[in-house]
Amino acid sequence: MGMDSSSILGKMKDKVVEIAKNVEKIGRDDPRKIVHSAKVGVALTLNSLFYYYDPLYEGFGQSGIWALLTVIFVFEFTVGATLSKGLNRASATLLAAAMGVGAKYLGDLCGDKGEPVVLGILVFILAAILTFIRFIPGIKTKYDYGVVIFILTFSMVTVSGYRTEQIIQFAHQRLSTVAIGGVTCILISVLVCPAWAGEDLQNLIAANIEKLGNSLEGFGSAYFRFPEAEGEESGRAKALFPQDYKSAFNSKASEDSLATCAGWEFGHGEFKFRHPWEQYLKVGGLARECASHLQALSSYFNTTDDDEATLLSFKSKIEEPCTRMCFQSTHALKAISLAIKTMSHPSPEIQDHLRNSRAAINDLEVVFRSSSLSTEMLFEIIPCAAVMSILIDIVNCVDKISKSVDELSEKADFKKSKAKSPEAQQQLLHRGIVTPVNEDSPEGDVVAVTIDETPQDSPEFDNLQGAIHEQKSQELITDVKIG
Amino acid sequence: MGMDSSSILGKMKDKVVEIAKNVEKIGRDDPRKIVHSAKVGVALTLNSLFYYYDPLYEGFGQSGIWALLTVIFVFEFTVGATLSKGLNRASATLLAAAMGVGAKYLGDLCGDKGEPVVLGILVFILAAILTFIRFIPGIKTKYDYGVVIFILTFSMVTVSGYRTEQIIQFAHQRLSTVAIGGVTCILISVLVCPAWAGEDLQNLIAANIEKLGNSLEGFGSAYFRFPEAEGEESGRAKALFPQDYKSAFNSKASEDSLATCAGWEFGHGEFKFRHPWEQYLKVGGLARECASHLQALSSYFNTTDDDEATLLSFKSKIEEPCTRMCFQSTHALKAISLAIKTMSHPSPEIQDHLRNSRAAINDLEVVFRSSSLSTEMLFEIIPCAAVMSILIDIVNCVDKISKSVDELSEKADFKKSKAKSPEAQQQLLHRGIVTPVNEDSPEGDVVAVTIDETPQDSPEFDNLQGAIHEQKSQELITDVKIG
Repeated sequence: MGMDSSSILGKMKDKVVEIAKNVEKIGRDDPRKIVHSAKVGVALTLNSLFYYYDPLYEGFGQSGIWALLTVIFVFEFTVGATLSKGLNRASATLLAAAMGVGAKYLGDLCGDKGEPVVLGILVFILAAILTFIRFIPGIKTKYDYGVVIFILTFSMVTVSGYRTEQIIQFAHQRLSTVAIGGVTCILISVLVCPAWAGEDLQNLIAANIEKLGNSLEGFGSAYFRFPEAEGEESGRAKALFPQDYKSAFNSKASEDSLATCAGWEFGHGEFKFRHPWEQYLKVGGLARECASHLQALSSYFNTTDDDEATLLSFKSKIEEPCTRMCFQSTHALKAISLAIKTMSHPSPEIQDHLRNSRAAINDLEVVFRSSSLSTEMLFEIIPCAAVMSILIDIVNCVDKISKSVDELSEKADFKKSKAKSPEAQQQLLHRGIVTPVNEDSPEGDVVAVTIDETPQDSPEFDNLQGAIHEQKSQELITDVKIG
Repeated sequence: MGMDSSSILGKMKDKVVEIAKNVEKIGRDDPRKIVHSAKVGVALTLNSLFYYYDPLYEGFGQSGIWALLTVIFVFEFTVGATLSKGLNRASATLLAAAMGVGAKYLGDLCGDKGEPVVLGILVFILAAILTFIRFIPGIKTKYDYGVVIFILTFSMVTVSGYRTEQIIQFAHQRLSTVAIGGVTCILISVLVCPAWAGEDLQNLIAANIEKLGNSLEGFGSAYFRFPEAEGEESGRAKALFPQDYKSAFNSKASEDSLATCAGWEFGHGEFKFRHPWEQYLKVGGLARECASHLQALSSYFNTTDDDEATLLSFKSKIEEPCTRMCFQSTHALKAISLAIKTMSHPSPEIQDHLRNSRAAINDLEVVFRSSSLSTEMLFEIIPCAAVMSILIDIVNCVDKISKSVDELSEKADFKKSKAKSPEAQQQLLHRGIVTPVNEDSPEGDVVAVTIDETPQDSPEFDNLQGAIHEQKSQELITDVKIG
């Protein structure tokens, strides 16, 4: 029994240690959460003065409690959420208090017996209608809290007004304390280490795009480690393909709620009042699309025992263009992520990287076309064809992300870098990261051949392309024509 | 100007009509929402009696307002959510009130000057710590409301206790009114047309699985309409592939929150107290996986202008097994959905449908193997190979869903149907829906050949299978051995 209780104690100790580590991690990952907790404590303690400080208590009496209530329900982590709740609460309280006072006077007209009946019916009707209104999606996202507070204030004013004769003074006291509580929250939230929802949204989306780049980079190197992969080695190859891209899948809800909160924030720093938050959501959606292509890639790793000579030799043939394409697209993604994070106009580098990615895919096609394989061998390389098809999807998706970020840059007035001058661009090409495109094999090649009704040299491959990527190619065409 | 104002009026009228239609739709889609609104109205009106009814007002005084507050914040749509908030609120209020009274006595010991300082410091420390605790994910999902109410009650009791000498009476009144408000909510929520979160979760998941079936069924017929598809016809072909499967993607958040709420619900009807809600979430996750495969299929519709004779003639060859596989898997999905909805043990039909699906895939392979195509032609049919690869993924995924639902059926004690007796099963095979499996080509064939180290007749195809589906085949093997 002694052992029993000591093992229970041991388990409890483990549990406590685990929780403590968890808490420490949350604090280290985002120290603003610790600051936020202290801010709430300060706001609450300040508003306690309504009770502790005699002159205030004489002025507001028991209504001081509403300042505390307001702080607890309104103070949220981001400035946007605090503003949203504060403004919702303020306007709902004002409107409901006015209507409540009106209802009280209406009740007075019905005499002593009639008053509770009339007030009861009014409360019932308003509560039922407003509860139903909360189900409307547009109201739910933006004004849910306001509607709740409206029901609360209206029923409190009418119901307790039945017992109070000085209803105006009562309403006035309550409105002032709610206002003071709300203003305290907003001031502390904005002035002390503000956590802006807009910035969080921007960082979240930039981080997700960078993670897509990490995964793609990992794929480029991991996919071709197979020749030597055996058993646990293949597990390692899979480990080399980072699953970072999955974070894009899980951030939809956060993105939506951050964008709603950001809509309530006033201009600050480089963010204007009407910053194009919906455009961030569009970019986030495209990042999720790209992540789904990366997920499709991940199923092409399970070829452990299959040391098929044909597949392996073919893989080594496509290694160079594949790796190049992954490398170039990764750089494009990272440059896009950087542009979002620093709010600077997307650098012309990105277009170069995309062009190089397309050129790499073009080279891939050439390898496919020029390889003389028997019927049996062709079946074996179908997985490679599938990988190629997905890589084309990814390049198209990165292209869409890039366009969407260009649009964002226009709408949000990102600062233009000076790299726009011809000399700077020249310099960029010589920096070594960007491989200049070979002029003899223009990047529009894939496409030009696909739309050509009479393909010249390799009809079989164009048809494959046409079959799988007809729609996507159409996009590329417009692209090339513009570029 | 007259026209201007009339056009503004017209716009406003349109807007109002639109909102009215929206509201009508919400009410018609789920009449329980209208009932819920009325229930909230009734609960609120009942609790107004604390003010209207003299004996009650004499007993509780101003504290009656807490009953109203409790109703407004606790009454949620589902029974589970109401119970969760009610119990959170009750236990947090009780604990915080006790601690608040303790803090008040501690303050009393410090004298008149010291009391506000000590109370202020206590409120600050507790508010800061508890606000930080709200960031811990496990607390956030289940106890967030309880922690908020704890901060609220603790600061209210200590702060307003500073001005009240009868703190015990004060705490007692408040606790009673909160309890009465909470009990009203729970009783009305449970007794009048209850909306159980558990049932909603079950219906949501069953509906999502049925929608997967609809989409798959649509694919089976739409994919082979291509031969005659031209321009808008192809748009129609795409319309024939219902996008129903997408609803699985969007219901992750609802599933999670319904499962959390369902965890608070007591046993009712066929749901026991500890119903295996996590298992529903697992099934939901697999449904999302299946939906992602269906999404991958949707990209193989854009072959409009491509009237390649080879592809078309090949398509017509694979039409029969493909359609059969879609048909069989659709029936499996619909039977699984029915089993969840009716809480009955999954019918043995499902396994038959799955076996038939695998047999269809096997036939598909035979078509691939036996077709004598030139190198050029092989490139053309790569899209068909990709479709086949995805269809195999889908059958495997349906298999996983089926296994997961079997597990659910065990854990949740679904009622067994009498179809288990041999005669009933015999009858089932003769009902005509299930095509009995040809014993000469057992469904484990695909797999058996794949694991065979020395494939006899068609090494090229097995390698393709091996390359793409090695891992999945391993699962099938265990399957076949058991079955």
